[in-house]
Amino acid sequence: MTEHTDHPRRIILDCDPGHDDAVAIMLALGSSAVELLGVTTVGGNQTVDKITRNAQSVLEVCRRQDVPVHRGSARPLLREVHVAGDIHGESGLDGVELPAPTVPVAAQRAVEFIVETVMAAEPGEITLVGTGPLTNLALAARLEPAIVERVREVVIMGGGYHEGNMTPVAEFNIWADPEAAAIVVDAGWELTMVGLDLTHQALATAEVEQEISALGTDLAEFFLGLMGFFRRAYQENQGFDDPPVHDPCTIAYLIDPDVVRTRRAPLRVETRGDLTRGMTVADLRPGTDAEDCRTQIATELDAPGFWRLVVDAVRVLG
Amino acid sequence: MTEHTDHPRRIILDCDPGHDDAVAIMLALGSSAVELLGVTTVGGNQTVDKITRNAQSVLEVCRRQDVPVHRGSARPLLREVHVAGDIHGESGLDGVELPAPTVPVAAQRAVEFIVETVMAAEPGEITLVGTGPLTNLALAARLEPAIVERVREVVIMGGGYHEGNMTPVAEFNIWADPEAAAIVVDAGWELTMVGLDLTHQALATAEVEQEISALGTDLAEFFLGLMGFFRRAYQENQGFDDPPVHDPCTIAYLIDPDVVRTRRAPLRVETRGDLTRGMTVADLRPGTDAEDCRTQIATELDAPGFWRLVVDAVRVLG
Amino acid sequence: MTEHTDHPRRIILDCDPGHDDAVAIMLALGSSAVELLGVTTVGGNQTVDKITRNAQSVLEVCRRQDVPVHRGSARPLLREVHVAGDIHGESGLDGVELPAPTVPVAAQRAVEFIVETVMAAEPGEITLVGTGPLTNLALAARLEPAIVERVREVVIMGGGYHEGNMTPVAEFNIWADPEAAAIVVDAGWELTMVGLDLTHQALATAEVEQEISALGTDLAEFFLGLMGFFRRAYQENQGFDDPPVHDPCTIAYLIDPDVVRTRRAPLRVETRGDLTRGMTVADLRPGTDAEDCRTQIATELDAPGFWRLVVDAVRVLG
Amino acid sequence: MTEHTDHPRRIILDCDPGHDDAVAIMLALGSSAVELLGVTTVGGNQTVDKITRNAQSVLEVCRRQDVPVHRGSARPLLREVHVAGDIHGESGLDGVELPAPTVPVAAQRAVEFIVETVMAAEPGEITLVGTGPLTNLALAARLEPAIVERVREVVIMGGGYHEGNMTPVAEFNIWADPEAAAIVVDAGWELTMVGLDLTHQALATAEVEQEISALGTDLAEFFLGLMGFFRRAYQENQGFDDPPVHDPCTIAYLIDPDVVRTRRAPLRVETRGDLTRGMTVADLRPGTDAEDCRTQIATELDAPGFWRLVVDAVRVLG
Repeated sequence: MTEHTDHPRRIILDCDPGHDDAVAIMLALGSSAVELLGVTTVGGNQTVDKITRNAQSVLEVCRRQDVPVHRGSARPLLREVHVAGDIHGESGLDGVELPAPTVPVAAQRAVEFIVETVMAAEPGEITLVGTGPLTNLALAARLEPAIVERVREVVIMGGGYHEGNMTPVAEFNIWADPEAAAIVVDAGWELTMVGLDLTHQALATAEVEQEISALGTDLAEFFLGLMGFFRRAYQENQGFDDPPVHDPCTIAYLIDPDVVRTRRAPLRVETRGDLTRGMTVADLRPGTDAEDCRTQIATELDAPGFWRLVVDAVRVLG
Repeated sequence: MTEHTDHPRRIILDCDPGHDDAVAIMLALGSSAVELLGVTTVGGNQTVDKITRNAQSVLEVCRRQDVPVHRGSARPLLREVHVAGDIHGESGLDGVELPAPTVPVAAQRAVEFIVETVMAAEPGEITLVGTGPLTNLALAARLEPAIVERVREVVIMGGGYHEGNMTPVAEFNIWADPEAAAIVVDAGWELTMVGLDLTHQALATAEVEQEISALGTDLAEFFLGLMGFFRRAYQENQGFDDPPVHDPCTIAYLIDPDVVRTRRAPLRVETRGDLTRGMTVADLRPGTDAEDCRTQIATELDAPGFWRLVVDAVRVLG
Repeated sequence: MTEHTDHPRRIILDCDPGHDDAVAIMLALGSSAVELLGVTTVGGNQTVDKITRNAQSVLEVCRRQDVPVHRGSARPLLREVHVAGDIHGESGLDGVELPAPTVPVAAQRAVEFIVETVMAAEPGEITLVGTGPLTNLALAARLEPAIVERVREVVIMGGGYHEGNMTPVAEFNIWADPEAAAIVVDAGWELTMVGLDLTHQALATAEVEQEISALGTDLAEFFLGLMGFFRRAYQENQGFDDPPVHDPCTIAYLIDPDVVRTRRAPLRVETRGDLTRGMTVADLRPGTDAEDCRTQIATELDAPGFWRLVVDAVRVLG
Repeated sequence: MTEHTDHPRRIILDCDPGHDDAVAIMLALGSSAVELLGVTTVGGNQTVDKITRNAQSVLEVCRRQDVPVHRGSARPLLREVHVAGDIHGESGLDGVELPAPTVPVAAQRAVEFIVETVMAAEPGEITLVGTGPLTNLALAARLEPAIVERVREVVIMGGGYHEGNMTPVAEFNIWADPEAAAIVVDAGWELTMVGLDLTHQALATAEVEQEISALGTDLAEFFLGLMGFFRRAYQENQGFDDPPVHDPCTIAYLIDPDVVRTRRAPLRVETRGDLTRGMTVADLRPGTDAEDCRTQIATELDAPGFWRLVVDAVRVLG
């Protein structure tokens, strides 16, 4: 379903950079297996204003100002805005110097960019990758339901079948806009959830940092600055030694599905619940028939393979 | 706040015709106090396909094919589609012959028509009227939050502070998409809820039908055909003798606020609740300060005045 | 159903005195139409410790220490304890001097007293009156389901079909333990809800106070002390001029059903809902068949008749 | 905390036999480390009438009619009755011949037996074991809150931190009465949840059945009859090859805590949620401080050790 082909995977990355979103952008730009058509932004790790500027800055650092940035939703569908300042800092990308953007934000709204890009492309051509709250993707699916049949696949970083971070059972992106997540997960398109169960295996260890450091480039330095802040944030707030670099796992899955192993399972999002709001509920019971469902969950990461892809991308970007 | 001015009120009517929506269209077209910029459609009383065609047919009957019809949401944000076939019949406008449309549906999606119209107009110029589920208005507010400050006012037929129809405490339009209703009611724009408490006073009595009948026009005949079916549906399903003609009360309020008396009150929408999902909750407690809130509820109808407006409009449309 | 008979109505009063509960006790003791078998207490207006002592003190003041007081639930089934200190003060009966009890609290728990009394009596003999949160009655119905068929009737002060006090749509007693209220309302026994719609008509006006004052007894003085505090609390917290004396309306209904008019209607309690938790939902739609339901709601108070009963009772108690 | 002592653990077993409850009774009766003071019954796997008779029959088969059976709750606190006929059959113990009871059910209600036994014993003496819906234990905790401090420990079979059976995330006993489970889990007593994560390791394999078969007693035959039906039910309804014998794991934990390994974790019960109602939510996040909480979850079963206890008990009972 997601095997390597001659042609690169054409994707829109809907994100809220965010330290790990920044790495996802780098991986998408640095891999020949992926063509990044545009970056759309969504309030999440920080406000959409900061997020949008961060996306532009990361593209500056990567010298890829040609990739358009489309500003998206400032707030969730229903719940109030709640940013993750404890994890991503005041700017959303604390730990590095962010260059000022040299090109303006695209005029078209994120949701309309998504809709028009999918509708203008061939059926099955565009893949949507979401690494923030799913507000934009939900609005796109409701604004133009025809995109559901037309996209190739949707890959999200979010949720978890056994792990949570914002609450015992809910991950930040889904928790931040559970109604949007429910719309996206229930939509009927082919969807892969790369959740915490997988991304907690993508730890930026000292070894990984050494490999990046050895590249000796400005981008490597930028990467290390991000990881330094991210590590401390995860140590202080989440009880981790090394920070899990969630978002690029989605891109790694598109580049090489052997790196991110998946399993087909019925998937839903809990939008209510006193304790469970924003939980992704996967049906993993032995008696469940998962053949016909269009959702799958990421289970096992080839961590060395994953980091090889990331290091290569940082190298390629120079 | 909404007094008569020299200039007609420029409105977009977001609706799901529906017998009473049809009368709302007639009243808007037949009154010089209102300028109908476009009709946007939403799945509700029937599927959005039938609804859209019904809107076109009503404009045909009124010989106002110049008013554009923009097709909108086929389904609620989260809850499943549920049409009101018991009240509006298989077509959504049972009881009359519906002429085939002679002009196509507009190319632009309803939500984008709403957003672009509001953004292109002067601040405070456009009034949005919603007489179906509020999916389109909610999507518009989330797609382009700037419209919230820019519209003049939002007037909805829906909800009720003491009455329900789909459940003991929920009215169909709100019940059909409670999350959209919550978005619209919480948005922060000036909003008037014309709910069942008011519209159950707008009964199409035999006397009203006689006045319409006396006009002797094709449109009067069309009106009577609609009311005939509507009456039987309300008698059989809702325990009413005469059918309440809900939707045109919103237009009547815009034409002459003395006809629809209102009271300022904090207003919210319940999106959960086992028994109360889709309820509009107005705070009417004696100790509540309602001065600062931007929501008001319609309380008392001048029924003779209302029907005079409707009869006049049918007469004017010829 | 509740007509005067030769024999007095034998009741257990489950309450949380509370200014208006105190008046309910007086009315029950002072009327020959009612025989008060015992008072059971429940945490509500104040903690169950204070409530229990208050019940004893009120019986002292009335010189009816022979009526046993059985201590009941300290807390709701699920929700946390929340007392109504703003309305009833620190003691739960602020505004009067409370005499120390001269007889101990009964050894038997409230719930078991209720169950054993009902089971030991003839079928249809005992009426349960609840004027606080319904925790005890709910526990009794679950501990011994046979009481449901065996009681004559349950009469509660709580809820409202169009009015709320704790929230726009929820009354304190139901809001304080909505799960207990749901159990009691759904149990299947004959139940009459005397809600805010009714009790907001039972205002202790200056005229009422003058009539009581004219009695010139210690008990009249006690009554006036209670009402003085209650009036100020309602003025400052609820926007009322005169305080509504809720709880004795239940007793008045038992003494003379003409004083408290009722209407049969299906009744439920909302236990969830963001805005509606603790709301009593009555189905008043015109098409609803209410013949078979076992719940009724109090709608209209004969206020002069009601106060005549109260004044008579205070007089009789001397 | 739960180490072997000279004195046997004095327990009340609150259960709904049920095939695995029957094995729990056998294990409790057949181990010198446990003294079974009484069996209390609760509607769950079947109606409380059948359950109560089943409990009596199992005691007959074990020739321990001296252990009193106290009939308990017929229904959950709030939700409707739902029995597990697909797993336990029409009788609740399908697959064996059930002898008629020779002693009557005890007169005292289950809830009152629990309360009085705990209050009459020394503090810290009584352990409550729940292997059905937790209605009785919840009612006991609310009827007499003093038992919470007075019991030694509560051990329940129910829930799961990563597994479900009734729904993807909820186990039957908790799902059947989530409000009762919330009361019991939140009560503040020392509580151990033996959930599906643990009990799915307690599989009655062919090897286990051979060991039992080798005992050659009537009770062994009875056991095998139970397991035969249970195996087919689990194969047909749950996708298991061998049936998990949940309930005796609680008793095994009391006999030898090394057989059922546990981990301290904050635990709650979700009572709402569209998808998660009845889920037990354990906070297993790395940053969570679990030191102070009074709840623990069972994680790992020494399966051979467990079955050795069961086989020994069946042998001892002769």
